Amino acid sequence: MSPTPVPEMHPQRWGDPAAAHRLAASALELVELAFGLQDRPLATDTAPAPSALDEPVLDALRAAIGDEHVIVDDATRVLRARGKSTPDLLRARAGDLGDAPDAVVRPDGHAEVAAVLAWADEHRVAVVPFGGGTSVSGGLAARRDGYAGLVSLDLGRMRRLLAVDPVSMTATLEPGLRGPEAEELLAAHGLTLGHYPQSFEHASIGGFAATRSSGQASAGYGRFDAMVVGLRVATPTGSLDLGSAPASAAGPDLRQLLLGSEGTFGVLTAVTVRVRRAPEATTYEAWRWPSFDAGCDAMRTLAQAGLLPTVLRLSDEAETAINLADPSSIGASEDPGCLMVTGYEGSAEQVEARRAAVSAVLGGLGGTALGTEPGETWARGRFAAPYLRDALLDHGVLVETLETATFWSNRARLHADVRNALGAALGAGALVLCHVSHVYETGCSLYFTVAAREDADPVAQWAAAKSAASDAIIAAGATITHHHAVGTDHKPWFAQEVGEAGVRMLRAVKAELDPRGILNPGVLIP
Amino acid sequence: MSPTPVPEMHPQRWGDPAAAHRLAASALELVELAFGLQDRPLATDTAPAPSALDEPVLDALRAAIGDEHVIVDDATRVLRARGKSTPDLLRARAGDLGDAPDAVVRPDGHAEVAAVLAWADEHRVAVVPFGGGTSVSGGLAARRDGYAGLVSLDLGRMRRLLAVDPVSMTATLEPGLRGPEAEELLAAHGLTLGHYPQSFEHASIGGFAATRSSGQASAGYGRFDAMVVGLRVATPTGSLDLGSAPASAAGPDLRQLLLGSEGTFGVLTAVTVRVRRAPEATTYEAWRWPSFDAGCDAMRTLAQAGLLPTVLRLSDEAETAINLADPSSIGASEDPGCLMVTGYEGSAEQVEARRAAVSAVLGGLGGTALGTEPGETWARGRFAAPYLRDALLDHGVLVETLETATFWSNRARLHADVRNALGAALGAGALVLCHVSHVYETGCSLYFTVAAREDADPVAQWAAAKSAASDAIIAAGATITHHHAVGTDHKPWFAQEVGEAGVRMLRAVKAELDPRGILNPGVLIP
Repeated sequence: MSPTPVPEMHPQRWGDPAAAHRLAASALELVELAFGLQDRPLATDTAPAPSALDEPVLDALRAAIGDEHVIVDDATRVLRARGKSTPDLLRARAGDLGDAPDAVVRPDGHAEVAAVLAWADEHRVAVVPFGGGTSVSGGLAARRDGYAGLVSLDLGRMRRLLAVDPVSMTATLEPGLRGPEAEELLAAHGLTLGHYPQSFEHASIGGFAATRSSGQASAGYGRFDAMVVGLRVATPTGSLDLGSAPASAAGPDLRQLLLGSEGTFGVLTAVTVRVRRAPEATTYEAWRWPSFDAGCDAMRTLAQAGLLPTVLRLSDEAETAINLADPSSIGASEDPGCLMVTGYEGSAEQVEARRAAVSAVLGGLGGTALGTEPGETWARGRFAAPYLRDALLDHGVLVETLETATFWSNRARLHADVRNALGAALGAGALVLCHVSHVYETGCSLYFTVAAREDADPVAQWAAAKSAASDAIIAAGATITHHHAVGTDHKPWFAQEVGEAGVRMLRAVKAELDPRGILNPGVLIP
Repeated sequence: MSPTPVPEMHPQRWGDPAAAHRLAASALELVELAFGLQDRPLATDTAPAPSALDEPVLDALRAAIGDEHVIVDDATRVLRARGKSTPDLLRARAGDLGDAPDAVVRPDGHAEVAAVLAWADEHRVAVVPFGGGTSVSGGLAARRDGYAGLVSLDLGRMRRLLAVDPVSMTATLEPGLRGPEAEELLAAHGLTLGHYPQSFEHASIGGFAATRSSGQASAGYGRFDAMVVGLRVATPTGSLDLGSAPASAAGPDLRQLLLGSEGTFGVLTAVTVRVRRAPEATTYEAWRWPSFDAGCDAMRTLAQAGLLPTVLRLSDEAETAINLADPSSIGASEDPGCLMVTGYEGSAEQVEARRAAVSAVLGGLGGTALGTEPGETWARGRFAAPYLRDALLDHGVLVETLETATFWSNRARLHADVRNALGAALGAGALVLCHVSHVYETGCSLYFTVAAREDADPVAQWAAAKSAASDAIIAAGATITHHHAVGTDHKPWFAQEVGEAGVRMLRAVKAELDPRGILNPGVLIP
């Protein structure tokens, strides 16, 4: 069975072009009041540079995977140019798509992926594995200098459910499957992955694994890296088949070296994941807390009691106030406090039991139950924020996000330091919002969203703010990214985080598996 | 506060010499009936070869860490000679302790460990990190050829609780802390690790991490590698400080490359672990199942429902029958079926709630509740089996264990294949017993125990059986070890398990961190 294909994204915007968002009149008024309206139309001349790869070199590749799977037309190349961070979009909106690949190659299956890598190794061509193209950290922005050219290794033909083991509750998926496609194929077996990052509608299985993605239901289903039990990998120097048991003491866990490797060590050609039964029942509801501290303490209590809902999120005071500024959102009040969303998925019995137990704890800690309506509103809009970002960029409002994680005892400091760094860099008119979206026994993530009036050079404007926030994250001893990967954007801070010896370990593995450095050069490895 | 020190083990036996086990008359009768009694006294001449290290070389080390911490007397060296597998003991019992280290060195703290490594690197001395000395896979049996000598890097002076974070529920422990010592220090804060492998009374925190240990309460507390949130490591080429958040997308998880590295990449000098509140209540009970298949299916149901007890174990028919052959054990019956132990730890309320929920499932699936007495009997004897092994070795009964893990759908095949391989190798009179002691959503461990009449060369007798079982494990696609590490014994099968590219990854990291190969040479890395 073939899953319903996901539409191509617009090269200058997020998501399905047919679903583009326009601000309503009431929202435009609020935006004008906060930032002033500017007009930022999309550039129409987006032709990339001609392909740098010679025909004889391309012919060798055509012989390996078929003529029709080596694509050099401008329109296709532009669609594989880069990811979807705000700087990516700002440059694309301005017509700068000069970093489009020289060709888009579409191998089918492990052997053809290996053949592409052998060809690239021989001709010293940089290879950028492409799943959904949703990177927000420059993960597709490979280096070209010193290479004969750069190809996008598009995994879009590898979209099969290869195996289901209903006894072990595992499934083997091809890397090109997008989130909804994987769920559609699993649903036919009554199964689900339960992995719903904001990029779900476009991001791919291979990308989830290669970037250590984490979804909105991570409290219940776990991070993607925790779902993976097996990996098949093609590298320029041989194949890897890892994962002979749920857990093992047979040396270091090499799966954990491929997870998060962002296409720099090899190309994932099959991912075996733990699956769950598709939930019979889902309920999302909301709670109000008098402060972010009180809400965070409640999340910590749940995590340390082993009593987590499937979804657990908490907005800080600033983010809650903005949510409530939307007239269609939940009822405004003078002191909105902090909004928490709790979601439950499973059998009807499981949902009710867990909901009752969690609600008893939250009520006992001072939370105010707001019922299901605001929770269901959140669930309906859970993938919408990137569309809203495009609509705001259309009016000259710089919108971007960044995220980190730390241990609970460091959470308040990290929140304050990053807020202050972003606020100082972006100036008095900027909004700096934050929420916790992933919790663990020992700590949590912090996800920041900023909105500011674009100045004359918004790419530089954001770069300065991002740099200040990243410095604050490392100074606080936190991680430079909890679920967005390193890419090119986080490299300087990643090097500080893992230290000189850690960087040497990564370089050694890279040199061993990819001695000519063809795989995503310049990404991840400092 | 200093923890109560753990007694040194006897060089030819397991554990505290004062706790040595002798078979009761009734047990001797059973042993005679099954295997015949043979007399196997301990050799008394156990002097090791003289230290191969020159005095000037040792003087350089003494200058770095103090004269009294560089120990060359025979008695101390013999105590650090090797681990506690049955072949290790058989050789030691025969008086062969020729593999004793040339010196035992006892640095205190990260800087002194680094100084020892610098000294060893300069003088090309092999270094074997020593925690509890409980390896059962040859993890202390480093290669000596090509080295000026071999030292045991004894971590026994590094036995501090360095930090407790009661908000994040983490603790930072030094690697030389033995299991009971770590629990004693944590108990003063009302905390526990909950890590109770059979080696608990002697094994160390550093060893738990370096070998990916898993304890008898892993269903509730998790494997040791899952408890680790941070590591400090000294290598010959620099230090590593890993773990800036509970979870991260900042590249591959380098912690997972040090966990299971068995002292070949560096020496762990501090381990930060997730801790839990010490349980108020504990209850252990037992269930009877009509077959191993039925009991395994029940375990799988619990694991996949997210409804695990703290302890969950199941003996197969053969192991259950042997348990019942002990007159002091639970009441015998014609058809004992399979014995399951379930344990619950936590607050009184948590214990009762979980016990009720689990019992409802087990009862519904056809289990027969046997009450708490057999469960408490198991709990009292949970660390006793290695003492019993010594008592049987005294009478010429070869006793050894091995373990593996696989996915649920492969469990029955793996059980049959390994049983058959061991039975065929050891002959008709041998006992081959098995239990499941660790379960996951996607699979479980299998732990085999054999008992056979020793032939003239019991080391070779076991080597043949172990080799046949290991071949069967790899042929079945399972892991060569779930919680005993690779050491030297598992290397050929480990190489098959991770494949040629996996081996190259490990060698590359080794060459980068330890370019002169001084750390545990010959261990782990094929």
